Amino acid sequence: MLDVALLGTGGMMPLPNRWLASAMLRAEGRVVLIDCGEGTQIAARLHGFGFRDIDAILLSHYHADHTAGLPGVLLAMALAERHEPVVIAGPPGLRRLIAAVGVFTGRLPFEVNAVELQEGASFEAGPLRISCQLGDHTLPCFAYRVDLTRAPRFLPERARELGIPVDRWKTLQSGEPVQLGSRVVAPEDVLGPPRRGLSAAYVTDTRPTERLPAFLSDVDLLICEAMFADPAQAERAVERKHLLFREAGALAAAANARRLWLTHFSPALADPLHWIEEARREFAAVTVGYDGLRTTLAFDEDGHGPRSEQ
Amino acid sequence: MLDVALLGTGGMMPLPNRWLASAMLRAEGRVVLIDCGEGTQIAARLHGFGFRDIDAILLSHYHADHTAGLPGVLLAMALAERHEPVVIAGPPGLRRLIAAVGVFTGRLPFEVNAVELQEGASFEAGPLRISCQLGDHTLPCFAYRVDLTRAPRFLPERARELGIPVDRWKTLQSGEPVQLGSRVVAPEDVLGPPRRGLSAAYVTDTRPTERLPAFLSDVDLLICEAMFADPAQAERAVERKHLLFREAGALAAAANARRLWLTHFSPALADPLHWIEEARREFAAVTVGYDGLRTTLAFDEDGHGPRSEQ
Repeated sequence: MLDVALLGTGGMMPLPNRWLASAMLRAEGRVVLIDCGEGTQIAARLHGFGFRDIDAILLSHYHADHTAGLPGVLLAMALAERHEPVVIAGPPGLRRLIAAVGVFTGRLPFEVNAVELQEGASFEAGPLRISCQLGDHTLPCFAYRVDLTRAPRFLPERARELGIPVDRWKTLQSGEPVQLGSRVVAPEDVLGPPRRGLSAAYVTDTRPTERLPAFLSDVDLLICEAMFADPAQAERAVERKHLLFREAGALAAAANARRLWLTHFSPALADPLHWIEEARREFAAVTVGYDGLRTTLAFDEDGHGPRSEQ
Repeated sequence: MLDVALLGTGGMMPLPNRWLASAMLRAEGRVVLIDCGEGTQIAARLHGFGFRDIDAILLSHYHADHTAGLPGVLLAMALAERHEPVVIAGPPGLRRLIAAVGVFTGRLPFEVNAVELQEGASFEAGPLRISCQLGDHTLPCFAYRVDLTRAPRFLPERARELGIPVDRWKTLQSGEPVQLGSRVVAPEDVLGPPRRGLSAAYVTDTRPTERLPAFLSDVDLLICEAMFADPAQAERAVERKHLLFREAGALAAAANARRLWLTHFSPALADPLHWIEEARREFAAVTVGYDGLRTTLAFDEDGHGPRSEQ
């Protein structure tokens, strides 16, 4: 299961009724926060999220509307008695930002591991595999993809057929071979076919690129910026390096995503929901994001579609 | 006239229903902001304040709950098309903070003049005279006093008696002497006695000190932290270097302030108003501050008390 929530859905500046875009993902009690603008700690409190279990903070890029809430979130984690190290990952330039964050926070009671990611890099945060790809913005900006893999099913009837003692099943389940006298049993002998995992992606502050659809392919949930709604603002979107609603829809379609959540709306966009058809023309399963929107992605039943979706 | 508003009244962390302590003062269209924690730009928007006219930002000290909103406020000023230089003043250490702020904001379209104040220093921001004094906190923290002086009244009947042509009155009014043939008329000859100006002070993150009452003497409005309400928390107040409600009241009394506004409440203090009597025992004219509280201080009628007060 992969819980996903939008803490905010605003771009550029925090508004009294719309926090800056930020997402929280949780799997097996491990939490990943993506982007952290001014007020993210307040939004997290409002929506009932705690701070102690945040294991990684991913930053798309270093514009203040995605970073200026870091001192506050880190201090909130300190107040929540976080002691385990925290990973903060982002494009090159991260260490300079983390040094600046430290001027605001002073010494924290946990270690901050600043991981400057190279384009295409990936790393593990608990059960989650996190990978990044460069978008096309006014400065280097990463799209992130978070994958929760799913182990193949263990087939007890096959294990019994092969005469494997029950106390060795666990070894095979974990993917290791087992030796029985002169015979070696491989995990594949007792495991079912590969199973679809769960995945969510976060794409912000970018124009469409050729490579994004492949990077996002088959993602369960695509959280995607949609700064401008009105097609009349197409030129502005190109100039500011952002997406239109329709372009976000097209990206979800090209990636074969299962669902699309729009976020990172222009402060001038008072009623994003009004424009939903703009995205729906390209992709049916679209939700116009709002602060506090959340879902739990569940693994497909074997051979079936997903069990629950927002 | 001196407009004063509290943008927030919280200490330590911003809460969904209480912004971090910050005050805005305005005289003759010049605006001074005191302290700027995370969310101050949102609080300013909520309470209808603009960003373009902020001429000076005073920082009491460099704990994040007083500084982390700086990148956001400066970027909001940029969006509001501020082009004139802005003064940011605070205790020594300011330049390091401003460098960190710059990592978040990037290049701004106006000059930031970082003024590291020495204890007891004062400077002018438009018509306002700003002075500072060190409190007693866990790190150097300034109390600020803002004075709007008032010119003595011009006495036209005296000017006429002395035979001064009307076209020379303005010179005398502005404090310059006038020569009429061989006779020199001094401004004092046609001006009334000195008149009381207006003043407000902002005291935060401190224990009581011996010198604060004199620094704050006769202030029209004392905005004072009152982190803890319950006298049972006296030990905690000493340890954390903050004030109790009662101590804030005692400071206002010792300073002979006209009014006291309490602010910077502990996040654990759900209903500060409940504790008003704690402060009132020491000082009658106390208001338990709340986000958006504002007043306009007006000059006294000559020989009378102030015309209007919150």
